[in-house]
Formats: sequence, C-alpha cells, structure tokens
Amino acid sequence: MSTKTVAIVGASGYSGEELVRLLLSHPQAELTAVTSRQFAGRMLAQVFPRFAHHPRARQAEVIFLALPHGVAAEFAAPLLHLGCRIIDLSADFRLKSPAVYQEFYAHEHPAPDLLARAVYGLPEVYRAEIQRASLVASPGCYPTSILLPAVPLLKAGLVKGTGIIANSLSGVSGAGRKAERDYLFVECNESVRPYGVPKHRHLSEIEQELSLAAGEQVTIQFTPHLIPVNRGILTTLYLAPAKHFADSTAMNELAEKISACYQNAYGNEPFVRLIEDEALPDTKNVIGTNVIEMAWRLDPRTGRLMVMSAEDNLLKGASGQAVQSLNIMCGFPETAGLL
Amino acid sequence: MSTKTVAIVGASGYSGEELVRLLLSHPQAELTAVTSRQFAGRMLAQVFPRFAHHPRARQAEVIFLALPHGVAAEFAAPLLHLGCRIIDLSADFRLKSPAVYQEFYAHEHPAPDLLARAVYGLPEVYRAEIQRASLVASPGCYPTSILLPAVPLLKAGLVKGTGIIANSLSGVSGAGRKAERDYLFVECNESVRPYGVPKHRHLSEIEQELSLAAGEQVTIQFTPHLIPVNRGILTTLYLAPAKHFADSTAMNELAEKISACYQNAYGNEPFVRLIEDEALPDTKNVIGTNVIEMAWRLDPRTGRLMVMSAEDNLLKGASGQAVQSLNIMCGFPETAGLL
Amino acid sequence: MSTKTVAIVGASGYSGEELVRLLLSHPQAELTAVTSRQFAGRMLAQVFPRFAHHPRARQAEVIFLALPHGVAAEFAAPLLHLGCRIIDLSADFRLKSPAVYQEFYAHEHPAPDLLARAVYGLPEVYRAEIQRASLVASPGCYPTSILLPAVPLLKAGLVKGTGIIANSLSGVSGAGRKAERDYLFVECNESVRPYGVPKHRHLSEIEQELSLAAGEQVTIQFTPHLIPVNRGILTTLYLAPAKHFADSTAMNELAEKISACYQNAYGNEPFVRLIEDEALPDTKNVIGTNVIEMAWRLDPRTGRLMVMSAEDNLLKGASGQAVQSLNIMCGFPETAGLL
Amino acid sequence: MSTKTVAIVGASGYSGEELVRLLLSHPQAELTAVTSRQFAGRMLAQVFPRFAHHPRARQAEVIFLALPHGVAAEFAAPLLHLGCRIIDLSADFRLKSPAVYQEFYAHEHPAPDLLARAVYGLPEVYRAEIQRASLVASPGCYPTSILLPAVPLLKAGLVKGTGIIANSLSGVSGAGRKAERDYLFVECNESVRPYGVPKHRHLSEIEQELSLAAGEQVTIQFTPHLIPVNRGILTTLYLAPAKHFADSTAMNELAEKISACYQNAYGNEPFVRLIEDEALPDTKNVIGTNVIEMAWRLDPRTGRLMVMSAEDNLLKGASGQAVQSLNIMCGFPETAGLL
Repeated sequence: MSTKTVAIVGASGYSGEELVRLLLSHPQAELTAVTSRQFAGRMLAQVFPRFAHHPRARQAEVIFLALPHGVAAEFAAPLLHLGCRIIDLSADFRLKSPAVYQEFYAHEHPAPDLLARAVYGLPEVYRAEIQRASLVASPGCYPTSILLPAVPLLKAGLVKGTGIIANSLSGVSGAGRKAERDYLFVECNESVRPYGVPKHRHLSEIEQELSLAAGEQVTIQFTPHLIPVNRGILTTLYLAPAKHFADSTAMNELAEKISACYQNAYGNEPFVRLIEDEALPDTKNVIGTNVIEMAWRLDPRTGRLMVMSAEDNLLKGASGQAVQSLNIMCGFPETAGLL
Repeated sequence: MSTKTVAIVGASGYSGEELVRLLLSHPQAELTAVTSRQFAGRMLAQVFPRFAHHPRARQAEVIFLALPHGVAAEFAAPLLHLGCRIIDLSADFRLKSPAVYQEFYAHEHPAPDLLARAVYGLPEVYRAEIQRASLVASPGCYPTSILLPAVPLLKAGLVKGTGIIANSLSGVSGAGRKAERDYLFVECNESVRPYGVPKHRHLSEIEQELSLAAGEQVTIQFTPHLIPVNRGILTTLYLAPAKHFADSTAMNELAEKISACYQNAYGNEPFVRLIEDEALPDTKNVIGTNVIEMAWRLDPRTGRLMVMSAEDNLLKGASGQAVQSLNIMCGFPETAGLL
Repeated sequence: MSTKTVAIVGASGYSGEELVRLLLSHPQAELTAVTSRQFAGRMLAQVFPRFAHHPRARQAEVIFLALPHGVAAEFAAPLLHLGCRIIDLSADFRLKSPAVYQEFYAHEHPAPDLLARAVYGLPEVYRAEIQRASLVASPGCYPTSILLPAVPLLKAGLVKGTGIIANSLSGVSGAGRKAERDYLFVECNESVRPYGVPKHRHLSEIEQELSLAAGEQVTIQFTPHLIPVNRGILTTLYLAPAKHFADSTAMNELAEKISACYQNAYGNEPFVRLIEDEALPDTKNVIGTNVIEMAWRLDPRTGRLMVMSAEDNLLKGASGQAVQSLNIMCGFPETAGLL
Repeated sequence: MSTKTVAIVGASGYSGEELVRLLLSHPQAELTAVTSRQFAGRMLAQVFPRFAHHPRARQAEVIFLALPHGVAAEFAAPLLHLGCRIIDLSADFRLKSPAVYQEFYAHEHPAPDLLARAVYGLPEVYRAEIQRASLVASPGCYPTSILLPAVPLLKAGLVKGTGIIANSLSGVSGAGRKAERDYLFVECNESVRPYGVPKHRHLSEIEQELSLAAGEQVTIQFTPHLIPVNRGILTTLYLAPAKHFADSTAMNELAEKISACYQNAYGNEPFVRLIEDEALPDTKNVIGTNVIEMAWRLDPRTGRLMVMSAEDNLLKGASGQAVQSLNIMCGFPETAGLL
C-alpha cells in the first residue's frame, strides 16, 4: 500500500483535533508534523523559518491548514512553492471573487492570485478537479449541509433558484475553542438562539456554489441557530419546485423525478445516505461519521419541497471531508481512514 | 383581595405540574382539588361521580382541564352544566370547525355543540372575549410562538398571507411525560431532528387564527424540530412584506411601520418583550417566565422579513398562559401569580 | 407590611443574577441599587464615592455583597461604619481564623478585625445569631450541602468526627461566569471530572463548622466533581456511626435515633425536606427552590451511614440562603420571597 | 491475516449497537450473524431452531451474547456444545458462586455447572486464562472502573481491604434502552441522583474480584449515581494505605511504591492510561475509546489514598472490552479493531 506524508498546521481547535485523530489511524497517510496555533496571527515570515526547517515537516507531501481565515492564505503560497499540495480548512480559498471575500470577511484577500488555482473541495461535486488539485479549499460546515441537498436539484432544473430558505441548527463546537462567555456551558445549555442574521459569512460560498449549479445568480435566506449539542448540523431547506404540482398525479411525477435526481447524484456515493422511508434525518445517526443523511418531502398543501440534512460539523462539515479530499488527491480508496 | 376557588383535572404531566406550581403560589387563586390522570381514557360517566362528590372540587369556580385531546371534551359539558368556568389546555376547543378537528385529530369531535361557546385563549388577541368566557381553549405551545409575532403584521396588512414559513425548535417536555423510547435521554441528548413534517396537528389552529387575522385563507409551512433542552420553543418566521422594498429608503419606511405595528400591539403587554436592539431571542431568557420575547430583521438581500420568538413551552406556551386567562376571567391583575 | 431597603454590590455573576431576581419579587424588600462588578478589583476608596452618593443606595438598610473574595472585605468596613447591615456571599467572613483564611485563600485577610463580628449565615444552625447580626457571612454552596446533613449527627454524638468523606457533584454555574476554556459548553457537556483534589478551599469553612458541632477538631475528605448541569449540588456523605451496630436490633435502634435527631433538627424547618420513604435526593426536585432535600441509609454490610443531599447551588447554596438570612435579620416571615 | 467468524445474539441495546459497530470495522473478525433481542425472554428451545439453521450463524466460531441476565445462560450451553466459543456480556457467568448469584439477582442460576468453566474477562488481570477460555464473562461497567484501579494495590498489599469506598457516576446509556419514565430526557437532564443504595448488583462481582486480589474477604461501599451524559463512568475510590504515613518522607516513599505498582501492572497495557501529571481523569477523554484513564492522590491531611478512573461504559465497560477478549482468544493483536 502506497503512503503519503502529511502535516497539519494549526491543530489546536476542535477541527484540528479531529484531523489529528483521523490521520493517526489512516492506513495510508503518515502524519509527520503537527504545529499548534501558536503561529497563527503572526506573519508567515516570522514563523515559517522554524517550520520550514522542521526535518519531518519539510518532507510532508500534503499539508492541511487548520488556521483562522486570513492566516491560512499567508501559509499557502510558500508551501505551494515548496511543492506541497494543500488542503485548507479555512474560508480563504473558497471564493472565486476577492471582492466577495472582502465584502464578507471585512479585509482584503491576502493572496488573490491563488484563488484561480483553488478547487472547492466538495468531493460529490468536484471529484475530478480535486484529484488534480494542488490547493483544495475544503468547504464550511453549513455550506456542506446546504449544498449537497440543493445542488443536484438546481442542476436538474427541478427547483427554482429564487426563494430558497436554509434554516440551520449547529452544535457549539462550530464556534471553536475560544474562551468566550457566549459559549460557556451555562450560557448554551438549556438555550437555543439564532445568530448571524441575516448575513452570515458562509452565505458567500453557499451562493457562489448554488449559482454555479443553477446557472444564474442565486440569493438565499440562511439562518443559523446555536443548539446545546457538542456536534452536528441539521439543515431544513425550503425550496420551490420549478413546476407547480396541481394534483396528486403531478406530485407523484415530481416525486419520481426528485428521487431519480438524488439517486443519480448520490446513489453510489459512500458518504451520502438517502433516507427513502418514513424516517427523517437525526444528527445522532451521523455523529462520529463522515456521512451526511438526507430526506425530502413534497407538501401538497403549500406546493413546496423540503429537504432536510444531518451531518457531523467536524467531520463531513470539516475534517472528514478534508481527509476525503486527501484520499481523492492521493489515489487512496475514498473511504480510507473514514469508516 | 377577592379570591376564586380553582381545581385541576389531570395534573400528572409536565404542564399539569407547572399549573399546580403556579396556582399554589397564586395570591388570589385557591387550589381546592387536583386529580391525577388516572381518569384519562375512561368515559366521564365512570369517573365523574367520585369527582363530583369531592367536597372541595364541587366548590371550584374555575376548572383547568389538563387532559389529552378527546378526553377533555367529555369533561367539559357536565362541568359547564354545574356552572363552572373552564380553561382547557387540550386541543379540544381550539378549532371552530369540527371537520378540521377530524382532519387533524383523526376522530370525530366529541362535543361539537360546545365549539361556538369556546374562546381561543390568547390574551393579547382575545382579552375581551376571555373576560366573559365560560370556556377558554388555551392555545398550544407552537401556535403561541407563531401567532403572537404574525397576527399584528397580518392584521395591519404589512405582510402577505402567502408563503409564510414557521421553523420551530422545541424542548423535549413538549412531548409529554410518556415512557416512549424516542424520548429517552440517550435518544434525545446530542441529537436534533425534525418531526411531524409536513402536516403537524398544530397547523389547524395556527392557520385558523392567521386566516382570521389576514381576512383570507392562510396556509403555512410549519416544521417542528426536537432539540435537547427540557423547555423552550424558538420559532423563526419567514414572511413576505406586502410591499417590495427596492431601496434603503423604502426599507426604512417599512421598518418604521413594523416597529410601530408591534409597539401598538404589544407596547403595553406585560408578557411580550420586544427586543429592539442588536440582541436576538434566546430561550434561556424566558425559561421559567410567562414572557415571549421577539425580534425581527428585514433582509435587503432577499426582500424578506424574519421574526424570531422565544417562549417557555410550559408557561407562555401552556400553563402560564392559562393562568393569565384565569386572571382576566376573574378580574385579577393580569400578572398575578406570574411574576 | 413593613419593608426594608436593600442594595446589591457586584451583581454580574450567576449568584448576583439570582439575588436580583429574588429581591425584585420579595414582598418586603425594596431593591434600591444594584452595582455591577465593574467595581470589583479596585480599592474601595476609588469606587465608593460614586456609590455613596447614589441617592437610593445611601438609604439601603441592608447590603448584599456579591463580590470575589478579598474584594468583599474592603467594602464591608465603610458600609458597616455607615450603619448598614451586610450579607456577604463571598468567603471573606466565613472563617474565624485569619491564619486559616491565609492558608486556604493564599493572601492575608483584608479585614481581620471584622471576623469576630461576623455570623456564619446558616439559618438552621445560627438563626438567633443571624437575627442580631450586622455582618452575615453566607455559607458556600458545597459547605451547605455537607453541613446540614452532618451537623445534627455530630452534635448528637451519633457519628464519629473521624473518617468523614464528602463526595460532591456540582453544576457548572458554581464555576461562575468567567470566560475560561475549561467551562466552555463543549468542554463540559458529555464530561464529568473531579477537581480541586485533595484540598479545596471550601474545606476551611466545612471543617470549622463540623469541628464546632463535634466539639473536637474534624478533618474530612472532600472531593468536588463537575457535572454537565447548569445548577445543583448532590453530596453523598460517608459517616461512621459512633456505636457499631452488630445486628438488626442494634441497627433499628440506631435508625430510630438518627430519624429522631433529624426530626428534632429539621422537622419544622421550611427549607429542609427529609425524605423518609424509598426515594433518594435528586437535584431536579430542588432546582429553582431554596430547599435542601436529604435521605440517609444504614448499610449493614459495611456498618456505615450514608447521607445524601441535593440543593440548588445558586439558591440554598448562595442567594436563596442569603435572602433567608435577610428575612431573619429583618423580622420578615422566613419564607418571604422564597416560595 | 487470519480471520474468525463471529456472531452476536441480542444486539438491540446500546452495548449491542457498539459491538456491531466495532466488529463491522474489525480487520480480522467477520461478523456473520446478528440476532435482535426478539429472542430474549423466550426459552432457548423455542428460539434456537431458527438460529441454529441460520446458514451463517452456524459457522460462527465465536459468539457474543448481549442478552439480559438469566437469558444469556440459557443460550450458552447449546452453543458451547456446538463448539462455539462464547463471550457473554451479561452477569450470568461472572460469579463463581451460584448462591451469591441468587442473592444479588433474585433467581436461581440457570446453568450453575458452567460457572467453573467461565473466565472473568478482565484482560489486564486474566489475559492468560482468557486466551484459553471457551466461555468468557465480560465484566460489568462499574466493576471495570473499580477493579482496574484497586486490584494491583490490593495484590501488592499497599492498601487495606477494609473501608474501601467507591463513588461512581454513570451516563444514562448504562440503564439500557428500555422505555422507562425514569430515563426520559426531561427526567435525566438537569438532574443528578444516587440509586441502588446501598446494595447494587454489581457489588457481587466487585467484591469477588477484590477478595481474590486481597487474599481475604473484601466488603466495600459502592454508590452509583446517574448523571446527564450519554456515556462514561467516573469512579472516585477512597482507600486506606496499609501503612500510615506520618510525615512527608513516609508519604513520598509510599507515593513511589504506588507509582511503581501501577507502572508494573499497567505500564505496557494498551488500554490503561496512567495520568502522572497534574491532570485528573475526565470521561470526555475516553469516550469513544477502549481506554480507562486513572490518576491518584495521597492526602496528607486525612492519610487516605484516592484513585479516580474514567472509562466509556459501553466500550472499556462493555463491548470494547469484549472485543479485547476476542482478540486475546483468537491470537489477534490485542488492539485490533479498537484503535
């Protein structure tokens, strides 16, 4: 079995912890270096000397960046120059447009010339591109939970690009490991609250990818909520079918098309579980796995299509998906280290 | 201080427990009898003799029914006949139409002739009617969290009656105290899941009341979710403003109208807290109180209005609101026993 | 109904929040001023001018100090000088000995001359002293959960003063509202851990009071644990009966003496619930109340006596008990504002 | 790599679920049959025909029994007769004495003749015996958390066999998946309570094994508590050193002996983590793993030794430990499928 050497820069948060865990038991990835977030926040020039001369780090063929946005971009250029392939878990390379980056992240993009080189690391959509990529921008947790249900329907023209609403519920690990009062146990337990309304940062990548799928500019409503669980995202999507279904015959026809669309898109995907019986997604079914589970319902009373998804925000929503990209990039079995 | 004697029929669940707690410390209500749910499920004829001859129960002037739907209706007629006033916490008297009841509750209405006599016990909307009522149908927990934000806007014509979506999150006490595997700690903790999609029973009373407010038939999308907290409902409402706002001037005008509408409706309400700063509702702020808190946002990107509400499902969503009705019916200060 | 004016200095933590809540609905206490913890950490001289000239604060007859230890002592002297009566929720006046204070709190006592004046505010033990006190040191949360079960048994000579073990479990609000990583939701949820082993600060006041009850120096083993609940302390006490019980007759005799001892001590106490049937204490029964519930078992296999107690750490363990002292000091009914 | 076929009888509970999960990803175990708990409660004669003719089950070389106590014993004899090796997760074969079984489980032992054949499946203590065993009685969750810390100290004569106290805290999955009101989310969340005091069933196996280690009859105090987490057991053990330590020199000597004793017992064990720095055990460090972590403290104030342990009750406390036995029995690497 061939192996690749990998390293992680910035592993002090919850995603970094999961990444270390996954890579330590990966059959083909050899984790050669892990650096803590002590580097974060300093200029790369100050930090990189030590890192570059780390005997094991230098030999890493693939490097995961688990750094805050803005910082990751500084590390990418010199590492790419050294010939490393990069999987970045931050938001720095997810957007095609530096202007959109600046609008949503409130500072200039630190390395706009690299954006064209980056591939959006959603394997179910961009598998071929990921295989060849030197720089993979691993998607955010909310975007994954919204894009996987919505993209095939938009591509197939089964739903409209207008009027989409994504109502998402996230566990507290999504807020990171910062010592902030808002995320104290007593502030979160026995509490549920919306936040980031109405313009959360993740909208930028969500709308970029939905627009690409729809072939037109898509603007959505997205409401994240914080719920008292460690892990998990549950998204409820409200969509308008492209064709109105006036009676049960039309509804059944549409249902068959949706079912076929999802089967076509995900029937062979190892990490998408399509629920086709009475059950609905539940985060507890996917916690600790790289699986996203999905179910949908047509509502004859409102004419609307609802799609619900559940994923582990730290795995399919972050580190698991990043390892899935690693597997694709390196020609490993796509499920290696993820079952 | 004048007092009234009150009794509770069916106090073994979580709402019943809260009702007992509230009434035991109510300055003007004298709790004279509490019967457990052992009666539930039997025909009233079998049960009532004992109850009727209970020396203290007989003298109760107001009786709370905290019984399952279908059972409550059986108790109501004989008690009304005895001259008692009734506050029913079940769904039995919330709907005007026996046909809609049958559609949503899957059995014939047990006492259709009483429906016309019942008042929907939402004090902020029907205070005058509650004052005179002999039979108050106290609203459900989800309906309260949706109606209080939506009714004033519909009445004022500020939002359309079409396309409304209510995404609600409820604590587990909403499922009652039944020993069912779905509600075991391990099945609920570290879990979040939608349920009752797309046609939950509470839609019947929600749409009845929204339609009355809008002056036209309103059909909405309603998605309840179960989250791992004991108490609390957080509802996120998606609404379409009646007039499109094309620029920031139009948006500001609309914002002023919405603000005025809510101030007009709830500015003097003791149990509605309108959040007017940067904060958003959080269930932990209202747990243990009879308060519903609300905040709203206009989204210039989508043209939509979002309103978020938080309440304690067992208080403003059940027993607290029932005591509020008691206070109104008896001429007590409306906040008596509720602060 | 006579009333007293009261003020709170330092109300930004969880105990302070509870104190404000209790006093706002107290029938005889008029809350005239609340100052936030912005003062804490500064010398009183810098802070007091503003506070002293606050028109309402000046008139407060009783002042609650909800400040960190070390800081509270600085506020006490000038306030006592002004003629205020003080109820201090910190540890500053709980110990008789400045040397023990220094041993456990690692700094010199800021006002050792006031120690003789202070009364330990455990109403069930020191009711008469509290009534006359100008300075009440309200007990800590762990101490209350240990002292109330143990003191009567030691006073009656029913258990030995040696070999006592107190194993305590506390909710996270006990750690205060500081933004520390250890108390983040994700660090506490799905976690349980001991801490402060083997010499927690609260040992100082626990052993002082147990020694007074036993009439000899008592040293105990005390192990606090952090569990993922907001509120509540559950203490399991392991005690050695003074007389060995060799058979079931001796055991029954001892059981009767223990029962009588507790009945004598607490039979008329409004806030102590002695469980005398098969049930065992459960924090959920006391959360939100000022009640401590207790049960005990003799184990014929080991010859040991176990006593278990449950309380709300923020109420009977902090603010509720402080208000109970207020009621005693002011001649109010002892349960005023606490039912 | 050689493989073995394995089957599970009775996999509907939480332990069974974990067992299925572990075996499905085990590199050398081939899971050939899983039967649900529908069989439980019936006589084996009724159930076995179907099971015996299951083409894949017949070929299983090792069979895990995840059945209620009393039922497991009925399955064992015929399966042993067929030549299968058995790993039983119930209590049926853990005790040497049928009389003790009857005392603690309140019914006659169903297969007393098999008891002599059974090996107590605690690998760190009985590795050699497990290797040769045809019938392994996998230990209970509480016993594992108590025995691993206590056995080496008793064997080495470092602590007394008298006066031992084990205070244990368990997550709710320990109560199984039964639909009982006591284990509803709302009854467990924001609650902590002792139970099974003072004579929990697990005392029987704990005292049997402690007595074997000590070479004398050991009777202990054991108090289980239920805490609101899904998984995890935290045990705090209170022990009396065999020799009193009068000064710091004696204490340091004792500390070195304890440290050496644990190093000797567990220094090379893959699933025991000895914490030797300032940290204390925390269930969140071991959840999802087969590791037990332990730390100890000598208290010069009381002369006592405290040992604290943390494990995942479903893994090291049940299914993980059972797979560890499988690995030993089959000559697999002991960590196979468990890292």
